[in-house]
Amino acid sequence: MIPIADKNKEALFHYVLRLADNCLILGHRLSEWCGKGPQLEEDIALINIALDHIGRARSLYDYAALLQGLDKTQDTLAYRRDAWDFKNNLLLEQPNGDYAKTIVRSFLYDVFAHGQYRTLASSTDETLRAIAEKSNKEIAYHLVHSKEWMLRLGDGTAESNARTNMALNELWKYTGDLFVCTPAELPLIEKGVIPDSELLKTKWLSDVQAILDEAGLVKPAATFMQSGSQDGKHTEHLGYLLAEMQFLQRAYPDAVWD
Amino acid sequence: MIPIADKNKEALFHYVLRLADNCLILGHRLSEWCGKGPQLEEDIALINIALDHIGRARSLYDYAALLQGLDKTQDTLAYRRDAWDFKNNLLLEQPNGDYAKTIVRSFLYDVFAHGQYRTLASSTDETLRAIAEKSNKEIAYHLVHSKEWMLRLGDGTAESNARTNMALNELWKYTGDLFVCTPAELPLIEKGVIPDSELLKTKWLSDVQAILDEAGLVKPAATFMQSGSQDGKHTEHLGYLLAEMQFLQRAYPDAVWD
Repeated sequence: MIPIADKNKEALFHYVLRLADNCLILGHRLSEWCGKGPQLEEDIALINIALDHIGRARSLYDYAALLQGLDKTQDTLAYRRDAWDFKNNLLLEQPNGDYAKTIVRSFLYDVFAHGQYRTLASSTDETLRAIAEKSNKEIAYHLVHSKEWMLRLGDGTAESNARTNMALNELWKYTGDLFVCTPAELPLIEKGVIPDSELLKTKWLSDVQAILDEAGLVKPAATFMQSGSQDGKHTEHLGYLLAEMQFLQRAYPDAVWD
Repeated sequence: MIPIADKNKEALFHYVLRLADNCLILGHRLSEWCGKGPQLEEDIALINIALDHIGRARSLYDYAALLQGLDKTQDTLAYRRDAWDFKNNLLLEQPNGDYAKTIVRSFLYDVFAHGQYRTLASSTDETLRAIAEKSNKEIAYHLVHSKEWMLRLGDGTAESNARTNMALNELWKYTGDLFVCTPAELPLIEKGVIPDSELLKTKWLSDVQAILDEAGLVKPAATFMQSGSQDGKHTEHLGYLLAEMQFLQRAYPDAVWD
């Protein structure tokens, strides 16, 4: 029997890893736009947001490494795990597509993160609380950014509206995965360490609905929800993303600046 | 001073590596079409061609490894070198694009390889001669395949003709790199080990011109020719291709089937 305290620590490790992986993977996807944004200012805004995500991933990996023991570091967690060990939600690994798809992906996640980190800011776990407090301001800004684009695209031309609706329909099936809660996490919810995903979901649905209404966009009909990220079952896109992202550390392990 | 015999061996190693890298990189690009070809039969044909290229790459890497010494193998040469050590010509690393671009890339190379390997089949180097003799039949078939598609696309609809011309214009600037001959290779040409690239070029130009005429396609105007592959200067596409292709050996070095 694994003692309960250790079980909770393992569950917390996985939860922190999920938070970190979400930031790293979305940050990497957004960084793929670097130099290719639709306008210069927007290009720079996206890259700043990408850097926020990657910065937060670093803090979270540090904490995960601390929980797991001394042989793990930021770099080994980010660059030396294979796809099945990544805990990021499926939504975040989806390819950028056109700008509407990139914005819809960020928007669906930003609303989620906004609720998630606000709850984490009163976590009974001190480190999580500190990271969340520090993150809330940037998450609020990210949400303003993606929400404004949702309104601009939804309420723009017939084409921008159609493309945004198409992106919503394409990505909607990955949103259920955001709210998957593993049995091992239940004690952490009870202890006030992490948020209750059912509560997050209710709030998320109503916030998303409100903005879609304002933007003249249509919430996709209830559909099959693909999940599996917490069991290592990712979409094919993650492997390609990692192959590219991890190349340097894989080819030159433990490389450091001279 | 490096003795002349060693210098020639080094030059031969590089030349064989170039032959091998050309096959591996084109084979990998064609394999990216797997399951996505325009028709089922064509999908299978392309994958068979890709396998021909990869099979030939294996023979050539074996020979290169032999020339270079015992610590190199097929796998280390294919999977553990970084972009600047690859000798493949720039044309072959260019992305697939649409089907016209894939066909034009293969066609320009197939005409080149046809002349190159026919000369190699009477090389004074026994191993090169044996590999070339074995390859000539498949190279002739590859050329029939890409030539037929050039005629079909060039002489097809206005759109297929336009797309094929566009692909020709896009890829033409990389064809000069096929005929780059390094100073170290001159003694090998003199000794009849490898073909004279000037002769290959004259033949290539007239063969390409004849088929473009038949297909109703326009040879691009003389243009700046990008080269650099023999000095390790590749286009940005090669790095991404290698990151994906080398992932397994990078993540799990020396992995073997149990």
